[in-house]
Amino acid sequence: MIVGKSVNRVDAYDKATGIAKYTADLCDNNAYVAKVLHSTIAHGFVEEIDKKEAEAMEGVIKIVTCFDVPDIEFPTAGHPHSLDPNHQDIADRKLLNTHVRYYGDDIAAVIAVDEVTAKKALKKIKVKYKELPFVTRAKDALKEDAALIHPDNDDYESSLNGNKYKENGEHKNILAHTSINKGDFEKAIQEEGLIKVEGHYKTPIVSHCHIENNSIFAKEEFGKITVVASTQLPHIVRRVIAQALGIDWGKVRVIKPYIGGGFGNKQDALYEPLCAYLSTQVGGRTVKLEPTREETFVSNRTRHPIEYDITSYVRKDGTIVARKFLAITPNGGYASHGHSISAKGLGAFPQQYPCENIKADAYTVYTNTPVCGAMRGYGIPQAMWAGECHIDDIARKLGMDPYEYRMKFIMPKGFVDPFSKNENYFDSFRQTLEKGKEEFNYYEKKEKYKNQTGNIRRGVGLASFWYNTAVWPISQEASSCRMILNQDGSIQVQLAETEIGQGADTAFSQMAADAVGVKFEDIHVVSVQDTDVLPFGTGAYASRQTYIAGFAITKTANILREKILKHAYRLTRMSPDNLDIIDGNIIRKQDNRILMSLGDLAMKALYSMDHSEHITAEATHQIMSNAYSFGCTFAEVEVDIQMCKIKVLKMLNVHDCGKLINPQLARAQAHGGMSMALGFALNEEYLIDDKTGRVLNGNLLDYKLLTSADQPDLDVIFIENPEPTSVFGTKSLGEPPTCSGAPAIRNAVLNATGVALNQAPMSSRNIFVPFKESGLFEEVK
Amino acid sequence: MIVGKSVNRVDAYDKATGIAKYTADLCDNNAYVAKVLHSTIAHGFVEEIDKKEAEAMEGVIKIVTCFDVPDIEFPTAGHPHSLDPNHQDIADRKLLNTHVRYYGDDIAAVIAVDEVTAKKALKKIKVKYKELPFVTRAKDALKEDAALIHPDNDDYESSLNGNKYKENGEHKNILAHTSINKGDFEKAIQEEGLIKVEGHYKTPIVSHCHIENNSIFAKEEFGKITVVASTQLPHIVRRVIAQALGIDWGKVRVIKPYIGGGFGNKQDALYEPLCAYLSTQVGGRTVKLEPTREETFVSNRTRHPIEYDITSYVRKDGTIVARKFLAITPNGGYASHGHSISAKGLGAFPQQYPCENIKADAYTVYTNTPVCGAMRGYGIPQAMWAGECHIDDIARKLGMDPYEYRMKFIMPKGFVDPFSKNENYFDSFRQTLEKGKEEFNYYEKKEKYKNQTGNIRRGVGLASFWYNTAVWPISQEASSCRMILNQDGSIQVQLAETEIGQGADTAFSQMAADAVGVKFEDIHVVSVQDTDVLPFGTGAYASRQTYIAGFAITKTANILREKILKHAYRLTRMSPDNLDIIDGNIIRKQDNRILMSLGDLAMKALYSMDHSEHITAEATHQIMSNAYSFGCTFAEVEVDIQMCKIKVLKMLNVHDCGKLINPQLARAQAHGGMSMALGFALNEEYLIDDKTGRVLNGNLLDYKLLTSADQPDLDVIFIENPEPTSVFGTKSLGEPPTCSGAPAIRNAVLNATGVALNQAPMSSRNIFVPFKESGLFEEVK
Repeated sequence: MIVGKSVNRVDAYDKATGIAKYTADLCDNNAYVAKVLHSTIAHGFVEEIDKKEAEAMEGVIKIVTCFDVPDIEFPTAGHPHSLDPNHQDIADRKLLNTHVRYYGDDIAAVIAVDEVTAKKALKKIKVKYKELPFVTRAKDALKEDAALIHPDNDDYESSLNGNKYKENGEHKNILAHTSINKGDFEKAIQEEGLIKVEGHYKTPIVSHCHIENNSIFAKEEFGKITVVASTQLPHIVRRVIAQALGIDWGKVRVIKPYIGGGFGNKQDALYEPLCAYLSTQVGGRTVKLEPTREETFVSNRTRHPIEYDITSYVRKDGTIVARKFLAITPNGGYASHGHSISAKGLGAFPQQYPCENIKADAYTVYTNTPVCGAMRGYGIPQAMWAGECHIDDIARKLGMDPYEYRMKFIMPKGFVDPFSKNENYFDSFRQTLEKGKEEFNYYEKKEKYKNQTGNIRRGVGLASFWYNTAVWPISQEASSCRMILNQDGSIQVQLAETEIGQGADTAFSQMAADAVGVKFEDIHVVSVQDTDVLPFGTGAYASRQTYIAGFAITKTANILREKILKHAYRLTRMSPDNLDIIDGNIIRKQDNRILMSLGDLAMKALYSMDHSEHITAEATHQIMSNAYSFGCTFAEVEVDIQMCKIKVLKMLNVHDCGKLINPQLARAQAHGGMSMALGFALNEEYLIDDKTGRVLNGNLLDYKLLTSADQPDLDVIFIENPEPTSVFGTKSLGEPPTCSGAPAIRNAVLNATGVALNQAPMSSRNIFVPFKESGLFEEVK
Repeated sequence: MIVGKSVNRVDAYDKATGIAKYTADLCDNNAYVAKVLHSTIAHGFVEEIDKKEAEAMEGVIKIVTCFDVPDIEFPTAGHPHSLDPNHQDIADRKLLNTHVRYYGDDIAAVIAVDEVTAKKALKKIKVKYKELPFVTRAKDALKEDAALIHPDNDDYESSLNGNKYKENGEHKNILAHTSINKGDFEKAIQEEGLIKVEGHYKTPIVSHCHIENNSIFAKEEFGKITVVASTQLPHIVRRVIAQALGIDWGKVRVIKPYIGGGFGNKQDALYEPLCAYLSTQVGGRTVKLEPTREETFVSNRTRHPIEYDITSYVRKDGTIVARKFLAITPNGGYASHGHSISAKGLGAFPQQYPCENIKADAYTVYTNTPVCGAMRGYGIPQAMWAGECHIDDIARKLGMDPYEYRMKFIMPKGFVDPFSKNENYFDSFRQTLEKGKEEFNYYEKKEKYKNQTGNIRRGVGLASFWYNTAVWPISQEASSCRMILNQDGSIQVQLAETEIGQGADTAFSQMAADAVGVKFEDIHVVSVQDTDVLPFGTGAYASRQTYIAGFAITKTANILREKILKHAYRLTRMSPDNLDIIDGNIIRKQDNRILMSLGDLAMKALYSMDHSEHITAEATHQIMSNAYSFGCTFAEVEVDIQMCKIKVLKMLNVHDCGKLINPQLARAQAHGGMSMALGFALNEEYLIDDKTGRVLNGNLLDYKLLTSADQPDLDVIFIENPEPTSVFGTKSLGEPPTCSGAPAIRNAVLNATGVALNQAPMSSRNIFVPFKESGLFEEVK
């Protein structure tokens, strides 16, 4: 068994030596280069584009504007396609837009012989706008007189006089609104002696900051448009390109090489449709479109900033009687993943601390800001920020220890979510909390840090989370796999689930090796994916890949094994029931005798003069399950009150993500996610200019991503309860490590200082006011 | 039905616009460039290579010599691999060779940063040889004292004292010898009144002259060596590379892009193994190896020159009583396809004009000349040169008309070859001859041209041929196919049989469209083949592809159809037996009602929430059949006796290659083959220097390939007898058009002048002596 072992990554050598080729490495040197012209207003209509001077420049091949592109609105979210029109993603943008919805929107593109020429040409294009009032905050977008960002009639007048177009009493700038109602909130809160705890919690706009930007090149060949792109979802991007260009889906081919990270930004069609279109405008010549980091910050996707109001009514013993949640999310200028992120976050609350009376609402609202899309955690880091800060606020109000409070009221063993049918089989929440408490010496530290009075104070805090695995039952959950037996007994494995830096190909290789019965090194997962020959699958998102691919691999391996053993029967006359494949050999089960190697069998099957067969197998596996993944973070902080500076000393994550496929890779996943949680907690935040709607710090210098030197001691422990619905007992781990870090740090600060910081990130800038208002500065002066 | 229609080529647009990418177009600009150092002696051993000065040059990365390469001898022939060691190709060369077997053999390779540097470095390498006597003619190679070209102990002494090592009475320079013995030749010729006709016929060494040379680049990535190459046989080349490098076959990946012709030269592993090896010597960096045209002439493969002695004993009425054949073939320095070409040619004689008493021998002999390998026609153009010249010689001796003679004695209807089980079902030989005679106005012309006396004389001639389809029963004959249904109802088809310029992908698309029941434009054959994901198949040779792929396509299409109709049943509740797929729609057979489009079905299957399936199909089809393809050429020539110049005025080919898949493509195939036959007949010939063994005219300037201006009026007629063993009724056409052109022209010259020209090509140089000896010059003075 190779599953469960920390084997080296299959791509380690290529990546360490620089052999690995990424999209930009693969593009022809003589490709045309496209650059996008972005709007310099936050809201309005492009009235006129004067491209004459730019077009006359030597080396400029063509300039395409928002007046030239197909009149087709398309969706961009990387969701599985749905046959139900009501469940399909919102189609609300064109390849280039005359109605400009944020500062940085795409209005034209230059195709030139090189990047320098293209950039120079951008500067010579003159744009005349007709401006509209813009909004950067959700509450402003909901004002009566707010201009409509997506009016039914997409013209200036309709946009400006938005309030005329209200329907069902809801503002037309609302992208979507969902409610959860359980029990009778109003009646429940009448109970005498209830303690009311209220909180307002807020998260920032954050950038994914993957290393490789969304590099793309496109060309027409073989009667198709081929798009090579740094994407998490080749098959979905293929579909979206076809939708955007209004062509048959089979006429698009997407190739995914090695990828330098995605974190959800590339779980969207980004500039792939535009790049494909631009190639069609220059006779199918190769056109390269590589967004800069600055464009990636502003004109790709971001993490949704969400504001939560939570009100809980609890009894003196802590029992939660009734809760009310309100989540308001400004989504930016286009829908992208839209409301599903806010809705997913909202759905987390009732399950984590079950309660009989709930009233919850989430609104996602169009705003004139960069577009929010998927990002690692998909709404859960935001929800956990609010929910787990709030739990500490309850515990504090009741004078209970936050660990103790959670142990008492968190989701009980055997809890089943009626919608997803997910079950907490093993009381994993409590197991992870208890394990964390012990390993972290939580009580010891807490005791040590009590009654501090100086400027530098330490504290400990914790937060928990749960996360789904895959997208059932909201969307379809299926994956296809193909296996191809080579003459030497090695096997190519094709899956549409993508290696984007996380180690997926290694996990797939391990599972495939065990599923077929060959050595790990005899599995070659085809990492460069080409939708023309790729089995269908939807790609990297929802922490689904290891879980769903496990099924597809196993099903396909079983078909392959059956074919192999059928040939073995022909060659050995031993009944297939008495045969097995172990370590790449055909063995007789009876006495474990090796009858032949798989390579021998492959040769004899392939080159047979009367029964030739190229042994391959292909299958789709669909699941109707999902799985709870659980965990928590314990954090230890040191707060310099006067400097408004939080230093995280130690951070421990405990995960129950089921059985680990590769413990070393699992640790690496956890470390990466914890680091991302740290940035979210402490530093990262878009600053948007109120006067223009422009992002002020949309670059790596001003945005201040944590560096490796900023990382504290990170540790992770796994509790490997085998997930019963999962073929390898595994469940989600990709996103979970990002979910509980920030509130754990916040709760540690609360423990250290007594101040509840409700706005992430807890940067000096953001914590000065709460520290001041709390009187802390006076205390330590 | 799209089969049988002259639809445009699927690659027409790409190729006409220049979008089509060939190997050289795909290589990184910063790839290293390798150049091969060729021997400047024809036979001997490399004693020493001084590479110091070359290695010290700036830009030279590495120099690899014959002393550095793995001590592995490997085969290069593009034959299906055999599990029977006695049937495997001869492994007789290393990547670079210390034992130099011809002038131009490969002894070292320079890897440099660019081509100029690599070429300069080649000149600075000093080589010390220990020379051996060399032979350029088969008869010299068979002399007692001839040096052995492949001695058992591969050293100077063993080579020099070759005659010591004779075995079984046969010279060790004989690569192989086969005999056909039927009846009792010696007894049969005792019959009284027999007329003996003797002839000695000779063919030249010829070059394939495909447009694109054997461009290659190789790199290591994904734990494999990837070789992108202009080859006819990706899967076979993959195997040979692995054999040459001594690595597991699954560790090699071969990619075949668009190809600019092959004609059999690329039915061999050429420099692919060396290029792959060189990449491993520079840490897996991309190494490009593009042979020049001059290297292609000398150091790739050539057409076998064969000398035939034919003696026939016939009765006065023309009945052939006994025949004796001797074919001697100098194979060059290495085996490549070796004896199989000469053997195939020899095997053609007894079938074409059946005769009870046959004694036939073919010898293939190593010589110190460029290596002969496969070339369009695979021995049949040579055999037809000898055999069809000889038939005219018999007819002339008997005073019979050559057409009449053939009609009387050629293979009868119902003839079955006992070895291949091929049958002449339709009397196709006579049908093609008769049709040709009529269309060509043979007798009218013959009558017109009789009794000419001037210097300029015209004549008509004809020649017939038969050709096999595919390689069964000599080798395995199988092909695999995969089909992938897209959401729009279009289908990708993967086959390992290769498009090399001949239009194969178009024929495959037509067959697949009909086999599945979709429109031609909804089939996308995946033209760029990647062995990592490619179903197994052996590639372009033996005029097999349309025949064998027809089976694989049909079998796979049936599986795909079954899966589609199963889904259709689920969706429509109509029994699969009552459903069909026509023109991309699911129809109810009962009333031909369209129930849904295939695209609708694909969407509903793929995105189903409970029965999701990516509908694909894959299968191997193996055949145990072959098929006779028949035809003939009629030629009309004008001979300028004093100038020794032959001008072909008109050439007509008549083919029965079964049902045509695409008449326009079939005509194009025929025209190309006829043109190749013209070059073979009139011009093309390697001139080898007796003193050095060097090829004197190994370049396009001196070799004088016919240009388009040199082409006469070419015409082709097809008789479409459906081949009963073939799924689409089709059989070989790729090679047949090259087979009978040259002897038809020769027989027309004989008709015009009375002179039998027995040596091809009939260039001025070669016909001067026979014309002179015949007294023709005197006659026309």
